[in-house]
Amino acid sequence: MIKENKNYRPKMSNSKVEASFPVSVMDEFGNKREKHITGERPLIIYVDKKEIVTLMTLGNNPELLVLGYLHNQGFIKSIKEIKEIQVDWDVDSAVVVTKNGSADWEDRLKKRTVTSGCGQGTVFGNIIEDLDGIKLPKPQLLQSSFYRLLKNIKQYNEVYKKSGAVHGCALCKNENIEIFIEDVGRHNATDAIAGHMLLEKIKGADKLFYTTGRLTSEMVIKVAQMRIPILFSRAGITKMGKELSEKMGITTIARAGGKHFLVYNGSDTIILDKKPLIKETSISI
Amino acid sequence: MIKENKNYRPKMSNSKVEASFPVSVMDEFGNKREKHITGERPLIIYVDKKEIVTLMTLGNNPELLVLGYLHNQGFIKSIKEIKEIQVDWDVDSAVVVTKNGSADWEDRLKKRTVTSGCGQGTVFGNIIEDLDGIKLPKPQLLQSSFYRLLKNIKQYNEVYKKSGAVHGCALCKNENIEIFIEDVGRHNATDAIAGHMLLEKIKGADKLFYTTGRLTSEMVIKVAQMRIPILFSRAGITKMGKELSEKMGITTIARAGGKHFLVYNGSDTIILDKKPLIKETSISI
Repeated sequence: MIKENKNYRPKMSNSKVEASFPVSVMDEFGNKREKHITGERPLIIYVDKKEIVTLMTLGNNPELLVLGYLHNQGFIKSIKEIKEIQVDWDVDSAVVVTKNGSADWEDRLKKRTVTSGCGQGTVFGNIIEDLDGIKLPKPQLLQSSFYRLLKNIKQYNEVYKKSGAVHGCALCKNENIEIFIEDVGRHNATDAIAGHMLLEKIKGADKLFYTTGRLTSEMVIKVAQMRIPILFSRAGITKMGKELSEKMGITTIARAGGKHFLVYNGSDTIILDKKPLIKETSISI
Repeated sequence: MIKENKNYRPKMSNSKVEASFPVSVMDEFGNKREKHITGERPLIIYVDKKEIVTLMTLGNNPELLVLGYLHNQGFIKSIKEIKEIQVDWDVDSAVVVTKNGSADWEDRLKKRTVTSGCGQGTVFGNIIEDLDGIKLPKPQLLQSSFYRLLKNIKQYNEVYKKSGAVHGCALCKNENIEIFIEDVGRHNATDAIAGHMLLEKIKGADKLFYTTGRLTSEMVIKVAQMRIPILFSRAGITKMGKELSEKMGITTIARAGGKHFLVYNGSDTIILDKKPLIKETSISI
């Protein structure tokens, strides 16, 4: 019985859509050029026949996105609450069936925070309260390992390289990328990774989380929800992102690229075993 | 009576907060460095004593943000519906008083789209329907004027230059920037510009809209709401952004920087009076 629960997976479709599309554009010389643009489409989430929200997404990992979204918004605590997720792009919808119905969701839907680290994302009520008292384990991070990780990440960003206009997020362990997900919204990419972790029962404690986007309050909150103790980005950080990471014990590294990085919280996490020579540092600010 | 209405302005506070804050960070050499980070704080919007939403914002133009947000979300059609906007950062709140109460807002709040061009921004229901049938006037844009505008824009991005982690948006006319607003969310910056236009009774028809962010569906929708016929960015565009701009007749120019740009919709808007020599083109893709 316990084993059965441990391996539980909801019934899920596997609906991936095309990410890049060819278009003709005009350049500054008046010439016609063939380029690619990134897909973006609405995905209406229905939970127990109730319309919850419409997400705008690339559509690469819709089931993981829905799962992670429901979790990160505080709608579900465990994957076992979800019986089924069926995505049908013909009607741009994700139909979610829960095991016990969703009677109190009305209340949860009422209060919401539009967090605007990036866009005006929604985080439904109670999330900050749920995180109260969280203190993540303090890992150690070898600078040498971090440099190898930064190098490995450069191999990804598939959609970005082809057609731009997406953010990428990665779940990493040591110097390896376990999963890399792109989406038109970085919060979608983050949610899809949370969905993957839920589905595959992956713990966050020994992981690092990478995003191409900025480290705003909402990013730090989501990483805390995934219990990942290290968050890094090639971009910057906001004051509230820094404050929340201090509060919850998340090591935040911003402006990470080449040999360069800046540690905004948790500098004692980093073991400086590979300090660069001054001339090999890329000044990327 | 008509004149009085024309000059109508709600009673508004003028609450601007600090945008950048000094912090100590550790760099890749293990050295302590003094940097600046960008402010981010919650702003809870109450309309007629009802809590509507919490926005995460830089706090530079909170009254304009609230005004533009309420308009772009379809809560108000006219500035005359707003009697008062008072922002008080001691309690992180914006208190909005309307003239006629907001009885049917409950319904409007129920349906929402979390558009994720960037984050998971909210656009409340009916907006797409409201835009149905919109066709913007087709302006003409001299390439020479556009190049001067791109040059002028480089003077801005004040917060970005100091502490990063913000997006900037600008309302432009010919080669001039009428207003440039930065925020942690590009949708906030856009909403604040919409608020400025509402307050100052500025029409969009002879303007251009600039954003440092990507041209996703939500950006195109907001620009259509402001009735601005030209949208340009240094970043890319999504498929839905392109499709919506075609539908509503908005000229979309992406990857604009230096002498380079790509026109994704409305290439006949551009009068190519200043084609660059090949060697002076910056290849910025």
